[in-house]
Amino acid sequence: MDLTQALTPGLTQGLIQGLDILSVAIFALTGALVASRSQLDIVGFLFVACLTAVGGGTLRDLLLNRDQVFWVADPAILLAAVVAAVLVFFTAHLLESRYRAILWLDAFALAVAVPAGVGVALGMGQHWAIVLVMGVSTGCFGGLMRDVVCNEVPLVLKQGEIYATAAFAGAGAAVVAGLAGLEGGQALLICGAVTFLLRAGAIAFGWGLPIYRNRPPRPESPKR
Amino acid sequence: MDLTQALTPGLTQGLIQGLDILSVAIFALTGALVASRSQLDIVGFLFVACLTAVGGGTLRDLLLNRDQVFWVADPAILLAAVVAAVLVFFTAHLLESRYRAILWLDAFALAVAVPAGVGVALGMGQHWAIVLVMGVSTGCFGGLMRDVVCNEVPLVLKQGEIYATAAFAGAGAAVVAGLAGLEGGQALLICGAVTFLLRAGAIAFGWGLPIYRNRPPRPESPKR
Amino acid sequence: MDLTQALTPGLTQGLIQGLDILSVAIFALTGALVASRSQLDIVGFLFVACLTAVGGGTLRDLLLNRDQVFWVADPAILLAAVVAAVLVFFTAHLLESRYRAILWLDAFALAVAVPAGVGVALGMGQHWAIVLVMGVSTGCFGGLMRDVVCNEVPLVLKQGEIYATAAFAGAGAAVVAGLAGLEGGQALLICGAVTFLLRAGAIAFGWGLPIYRNRPPRPESPKR
Repeated sequence: MDLTQALTPGLTQGLIQGLDILSVAIFALTGALVASRSQLDIVGFLFVACLTAVGGGTLRDLLLNRDQVFWVADPAILLAAVVAAVLVFFTAHLLESRYRAILWLDAFALAVAVPAGVGVALGMGQHWAIVLVMGVSTGCFGGLMRDVVCNEVPLVLKQGEIYATAAFAGAGAAVVAGLAGLEGGQALLICGAVTFLLRAGAIAFGWGLPIYRNRPPRPESPKR
Repeated sequence: MDLTQALTPGLTQGLIQGLDILSVAIFALTGALVASRSQLDIVGFLFVACLTAVGGGTLRDLLLNRDQVFWVADPAILLAAVVAAVLVFFTAHLLESRYRAILWLDAFALAVAVPAGVGVALGMGQHWAIVLVMGVSTGCFGGLMRDVVCNEVPLVLKQGEIYATAAFAGAGAAVVAGLAGLEGGQALLICGAVTFLLRAGAIAFGWGLPIYRNRPPRPESPKR
Repeated sequence: MDLTQALTPGLTQGLIQGLDILSVAIFALTGALVASRSQLDIVGFLFVACLTAVGGGTLRDLLLNRDQVFWVADPAILLAAVVAAVLVFFTAHLLESRYRAILWLDAFALAVAVPAGVGVALGMGQHWAIVLVMGVSTGCFGGLMRDVVCNEVPLVLKQGEIYATAAFAGAGAAVVAGLAGLEGGQALLICGAVTFLLRAGAIAFGWGLPIYRNRPPRPESPKR
């Protein structure tokens, strides 16, 4: 594939691993903060933090049938999640608004996890459509699992919220960058930047796409 | 296994692939309709449509440890889900009752996805019990994920609703047909027909199995 | 790894398989009891019972990329879940408190499933951190799926409830036992005992870890 040939040189294993560790650490912070809102104990913090931290990347690795799930191959990655959970357990009360902290940390985590998903798919020479899906899945599913398990409204499905859209645009930017001849590292940088800017804009300025609104089906028919 | 030897000849890869694509397209329509009830934006439509469309088949492929998940092997399949989501985004307001449309489309999708699950398991020479489980899982899990993520009551678990039962009966019919000497294509046709008829009867005429009802444990004890 | 070398001799395949079957049967009972609280029909009982019964072990096998998921390799295991579901369908009304029955059966299932997860990971020579995670996942995810799907508050995330903690402590005890030179069978026995005692203490005596409680961020700032 041209896409992969163009991008592969800059996709060192160290870069991908670094993105994975960073996204694990930041997603774990958001997981632990959600756990604090649910008033769990320390093991509950660890549980939710780990689920959030490795959820997206694990799904990616299962879907792509990689030889080993990334944290099984390198268990030290879990340490990042554990440290984050313990840190939050003892410091969350210092935050003025845990909800805002969750929003912003989640935005950072998304902007790191999407390139991590894109990078792995590119490195395996996958079709560009699969690269897109892996970027979105790796970015969105950790947070989705966190919110479903803790019974919060999933950020990814909040009305008029740019979330999956940011992941989608970021992954798309990486694909375009690759086709335009940039090398892998640059493409992932652009991917993360696009994802973060869109998501940050949504949080800070309320950016959103038009949502679907029901219009009455026909003038004369009664509304259901 | 006799079962597989009898059924394999009619199980061409084209047949299985066709069933997969068709179930992806129809399930995607139901996912997008549920997204319209939740008033999501276009990317939200794509997200829920894809999750619903490929959820069941993806689970099947992971559980059976196939070399590749079906849509990773053939990304063009995702196009069907994308087209369906876009179509619904611009036309859902024309429907008089989106809920009825979801119910009926979901019934069609179920009647295609169950044979798709059964066919793959048979093609791999799995035990008949695994064939049953794969039929039910492939049929039910896409819709289940859709409903859990969008916070609707899962159709599969609605009280007195024939849903998993229809999938179960359809998969069972395929196994019986195989043991009776029919070839693969015919068995899958019977499988789809049985699934659809039972599910359609449940929607149209309110068919149902007796549900579990609590009886007071002992006359003298107070109710919990 | 020293840990595995020490533990492997006692980890016969029969022992692991026995633990898997036993945990499937007991978890299926809890799943069917939850189904009875949701007043499902018999196929709904089977569905929830099977999901609960094999959920944790299936996740373990996918994460560890085993050649085959345990119940696909040995479909007879599913029979245990089916029998349990049917049994509960016809006898649940005899119970005075189904909720207490669920709690206690779930505790037994946990105390069998955690060693099953630990045993498989040890048998594959995994890192001790992975052994811990597999113990906790195998123990907790079947019940978690049951509760998410049936819309109950997940036991694993109930406030101040020792649940994941018991699984974690049990898996940790197995690791320590291995490092202390015990052989595999003994380590798994200790693992199950620690898990059960902690969980039973939580149910019977209300044991719990201190939960996270929000303290006002700063004296002068208004509460969010």
